[in-house]
Amino acid sequence: MSSKIMKLAIIGAGRIAAVHAAAAAADPRIQLKYVADIRREAADALADAHGAVYAKTDAIFADDDVDAVLIASSTATHADFLEQCARSGKALLCEKPIALDLARTRAAIDVLKQHPVTCALGFNRRHDPQFSALKQAVVDGRIGQLETLTIISRDPAPPPIDYIKGSGGLFFDMMIHDFDIARWLFDEPIATVSAFGSVMIDPAIGEAGDIDTAMVVLTTASGRLCHIQNSRRTAFGYDQRIEAFGSEGMLQAVNETETRLRHTGEAGQLDEPPQYFFLERYRVAYGRELGDLYDAWSTGSAPKATQEDGYEALRLAEAATRSLMESRMVSMDEIG
Amino acid sequence: MSSKIMKLAIIGAGRIAAVHAAAAAADPRIQLKYVADIRREAADALADAHGAVYAKTDAIFADDDVDAVLIASSTATHADFLEQCARSGKALLCEKPIALDLARTRAAIDVLKQHPVTCALGFNRRHDPQFSALKQAVVDGRIGQLETLTIISRDPAPPPIDYIKGSGGLFFDMMIHDFDIARWLFDEPIATVSAFGSVMIDPAIGEAGDIDTAMVVLTTASGRLCHIQNSRRTAFGYDQRIEAFGSEGMLQAVNETETRLRHTGEAGQLDEPPQYFFLERYRVAYGRELGDLYDAWSTGSAPKATQEDGYEALRLAEAATRSLMESRMVSMDEIG
Amino acid sequence: MSSKIMKLAIIGAGRIAAVHAAAAAADPRIQLKYVADIRREAADALADAHGAVYAKTDAIFADDDVDAVLIASSTATHADFLEQCARSGKALLCEKPIALDLARTRAAIDVLKQHPVTCALGFNRRHDPQFSALKQAVVDGRIGQLETLTIISRDPAPPPIDYIKGSGGLFFDMMIHDFDIARWLFDEPIATVSAFGSVMIDPAIGEAGDIDTAMVVLTTASGRLCHIQNSRRTAFGYDQRIEAFGSEGMLQAVNETETRLRHTGEAGQLDEPPQYFFLERYRVAYGRELGDLYDAWSTGSAPKATQEDGYEALRLAEAATRSLMESRMVSMDEIG
Amino acid sequence: MSSKIMKLAIIGAGRIAAVHAAAAAADPRIQLKYVADIRREAADALADAHGAVYAKTDAIFADDDVDAVLIASSTATHADFLEQCARSGKALLCEKPIALDLARTRAAIDVLKQHPVTCALGFNRRHDPQFSALKQAVVDGRIGQLETLTIISRDPAPPPIDYIKGSGGLFFDMMIHDFDIARWLFDEPIATVSAFGSVMIDPAIGEAGDIDTAMVVLTTASGRLCHIQNSRRTAFGYDQRIEAFGSEGMLQAVNETETRLRHTGEAGQLDEPPQYFFLERYRVAYGRELGDLYDAWSTGSAPKATQEDGYEALRLAEAATRSLMESRMVSMDEIG
Repeated sequence: MSSKIMKLAIIGAGRIAAVHAAAAAADPRIQLKYVADIRREAADALADAHGAVYAKTDAIFADDDVDAVLIASSTATHADFLEQCARSGKALLCEKPIALDLARTRAAIDVLKQHPVTCALGFNRRHDPQFSALKQAVVDGRIGQLETLTIISRDPAPPPIDYIKGSGGLFFDMMIHDFDIARWLFDEPIATVSAFGSVMIDPAIGEAGDIDTAMVVLTTASGRLCHIQNSRRTAFGYDQRIEAFGSEGMLQAVNETETRLRHTGEAGQLDEPPQYFFLERYRVAYGRELGDLYDAWSTGSAPKATQEDGYEALRLAEAATRSLMESRMVSMDEIG
Repeated sequence: MSSKIMKLAIIGAGRIAAVHAAAAAADPRIQLKYVADIRREAADALADAHGAVYAKTDAIFADDDVDAVLIASSTATHADFLEQCARSGKALLCEKPIALDLARTRAAIDVLKQHPVTCALGFNRRHDPQFSALKQAVVDGRIGQLETLTIISRDPAPPPIDYIKGSGGLFFDMMIHDFDIARWLFDEPIATVSAFGSVMIDPAIGEAGDIDTAMVVLTTASGRLCHIQNSRRTAFGYDQRIEAFGSEGMLQAVNETETRLRHTGEAGQLDEPPQYFFLERYRVAYGRELGDLYDAWSTGSAPKATQEDGYEALRLAEAATRSLMESRMVSMDEIG
Repeated sequence: MSSKIMKLAIIGAGRIAAVHAAAAAADPRIQLKYVADIRREAADALADAHGAVYAKTDAIFADDDVDAVLIASSTATHADFLEQCARSGKALLCEKPIALDLARTRAAIDVLKQHPVTCALGFNRRHDPQFSALKQAVVDGRIGQLETLTIISRDPAPPPIDYIKGSGGLFFDMMIHDFDIARWLFDEPIATVSAFGSVMIDPAIGEAGDIDTAMVVLTTASGRLCHIQNSRRTAFGYDQRIEAFGSEGMLQAVNETETRLRHTGEAGQLDEPPQYFFLERYRVAYGRELGDLYDAWSTGSAPKATQEDGYEALRLAEAATRSLMESRMVSMDEIG
Repeated sequence: MSSKIMKLAIIGAGRIAAVHAAAAAADPRIQLKYVADIRREAADALADAHGAVYAKTDAIFADDDVDAVLIASSTATHADFLEQCARSGKALLCEKPIALDLARTRAAIDVLKQHPVTCALGFNRRHDPQFSALKQAVVDGRIGQLETLTIISRDPAPPPIDYIKGSGGLFFDMMIHDFDIARWLFDEPIATVSAFGSVMIDPAIGEAGDIDTAMVVLTTASGRLCHIQNSRRTAFGYDQRIEAFGSEGMLQAVNETETRLRHTGEAGQLDEPPQYFFLERYRVAYGRELGDLYDAWSTGSAPKATQEDGYEALRLAEAATRSLMESRMVSMDEIG
């Protein structure tokens, strides 16, 4: 089996980039060629560790030998780099979001329409083995017709207040992943969004104009229902669960722990707490994103998540924000 | 230990009455004296089985030797028998609901105000060992401040359409138990109710003016949130779960199975399905209701659930019905 | 359905007798008539609680209206009362053991041969819902051919040293239940016994000539293997598990807890510890023993455990004791 | 952090070698330089996939730039390559066993004594995250004093009869891993071995002079007890569990599944079956073996498993074989 080799450049040399670089090195089908970063030293170190070299982004886009680019730089740069990939004909995997607002995202998507390349969006959870297996089981009809979804998604601790101020709010910063999961599993447009929220964890979050605890109900055109629940603080780590209920049964994706070791003592039978946060919980998922890009690039198929998925998740965040502010159900028709 | 003996009469000789009668027989502190039923034969059989005798209801209320009455007759008779208990000075345990509408319920409660007796309402779930332990753990602060509740409550199969037509609808007939659980655990008034519903199981249910699948979000004055989810049909039995999330952790009440025997075969590790329906799932809870009445009767303390709890749950059902019909959030201030 | 009523006398008024008395009261098919005990007051109290009266044992055996006797008095009296039941033609349920030695047990069994009556032996675990379901699943072929058994059986804390001195040792006092379970599940004679033991919990147990931790391997004639493990002290309560492995799968009976409530906090996900000891763990099983006696008495079928099962378990305890003392595998042919 | 880079050669290009090569590529501290194999094509392919080149073993041992060698060739070549590593001063990780007999193993160990190099032995299970966590918890005293071990280890299906004929038998081929786990966890010499076995799966295994189902009891000098159970066929995959019981609690290592996705349907709640066999179950462990070699090489510490651990596990297999054949407890003093 002599697979085609995909030559890859990574823009960014932070934590997520390092995870992707190790995945590239371990995958015989991918050759990591360049690492770019505004911090030259970080780029060099990551390149060295896996037999690649440093390059400036312009050089990367100019090098015809580069097949694909992974955009793992800061959010503000995503849309520009995405457009440069499109214009230079390179496949790409862009960490989410493309941009924080609908207009900039739509503009970038328009460039992709004019210069079509394989564009994968880093909705990492779609690559999680457990969530993927859940999706597949739904597709395979193992629960008959899917009727309701319940998505619990809780962070271990709130981000700094300054981060919250620039984040666009809980629905854009946190629940956006859950909106994407709901769309992905229903495989049907969302019709209405009803959002409820409170400040129960830190009054400073409220003073910054945001909430820290939220519940949302989505309805679809065909009448299916989805409940999403978010909290910014969880005493026991990162709480990430999905329950899909259907006419013939139920599927449950449950929390992952570092190991399954079980301790029984006077207090009872203790399983380990969930893994602490997304880097631990979705490590395998991050490792699989590049494989998905490879598959899409080499076969011409669609990646698991695309630019349009990014856009639609943003629209749901917009709708939820409006619903919360106006204390009413918002129809997706209202959202541009 | 020479406890006071409580002499009991049971009105009704159906399935629930039989469960209560066996519980009375097994409890050394309770003596089952009479069984009444419009079906004389059924009353005789149940009385015989536990050393009691048949009596007409009038005779029961007239007998000063009867300390307490268990009302397990048909719903339409509850309010009248409750008032007769009050007027004849007998403690009582009334199966829920007192009545299907707020006005009749309020009238019965008024009689109890004029003739105060110990009145326990049969919200059986409050007596469930697992739910009781959850409540106690919340009270004990084991999860810090309670912030959100998630209540999943699904029946194995829809009732006959004729039953549905007279039931008052899903919120009155089914979710009323979940409303009570939410009130009981929050221990704080509910502020708003937002209801969502669909017909996904049987179009005939929709034609009867009801829904078969529902999601509700409750908010409290202090900003806490509760999600309730109901389905009229569950492929795997009776799905009864509660998740209480707080500042320091989470409590989960999970489904009960007939036994914990586990089978591992080619398909995986299989635990038994949940118990089929309420008679199995809440058998122990039914058995404890009389013990709670005994405690309240012998010490003068309040039972776990009272007539006011029945009234408040009805108000929430009313609010949910209005919310669904008008597609809007309903404030509890609107409900008389 | 007019079942035949079984009129019952209970000899003994201790904790186990009280459990049986409540079970009798709750069962419409059984009428508790007499309670006997050398402590008159205890007998009166238990009789009063369930509508029965005190009687001397001679009166019980002389009363033709008594159908069945439950022997729950002290161990030293079991064999005599059992023989009196046989001679007076009464069905009986005898708490285990019939006697502590093979000879006295054999003599009692001989009396039963001359005066055949329904004789159930109180191997309570055979009546446990989970173990019964495991047995049934084996019989139903759900794991194909049963090949190996692993029985873990650990007490919460050692009994007083004085008790240990008179107990006949761990194999007679504690593992005898596990020997019975192995025989019951294999449904085939045991061929050899190899026992291993240590004193790891309390040196005083060793000074009393006993062990506190034991492993045994049993083989059957057809080559099946069974491992039994006992400890006299468990930090987390009463550890009672069975694993049956077969050609097509595995069955596992796991520990029972007071409730299934689950708490997740910083330390992880905590399930309740196992129920503390046999009175809690096998409460349901004790409650079912009388039902089994009723079934055997009313239909003439064999009870789930008989006098011969008691005898065979004693033989295995004898073999294990010999194996440990002589550090060798003992063939059951050696045991009289 | 500029760690020292370890330059590595891999001898062998089979499945295990490929797992190690990917681990080396993903680890920034390790540089894979050469791959050797008698099948030149396989070596080339594996080398290409991770930026290494093919080399003959002689060239590897002659190259002073090679720091470490991973021996993943066929068993018969292990001892020779190990000795060459020692003589050429290279750290090594040798897949188990060094050799199938005690004498050849002892000879290789003697060469290591004369030419000391870091020698890690591939007892992969010691590197399993769950088993490692269990070991650490025992060391940390989380169960007080360790008293008993129960090791269940079952293969999905028997190997071909020809393989069995050359394998040395179940104790050498299969249970040797469990002997190592017992030694590792007890951290104390084993005193006696008692083995029991049957042919229940395939008569051909018996005709080949082997057994397919086994139970062993080990005792230590201080009186601790260990039960090991092996089967050559498991309907549900690879059954790999450890239970450590101590004075203050219990630790349980349980089976791993591909994902934790749970399906609940009419039959009950279904978790996935255990991963099928060692390549899946111990994939992470294989990936960690090289990291352990790196740590030992770079710091001069001892690897998690050494040549002596290999020798001692062989002695236990020898003792078990003798115990089974002679139907008696064998003292480890008897084994040379």
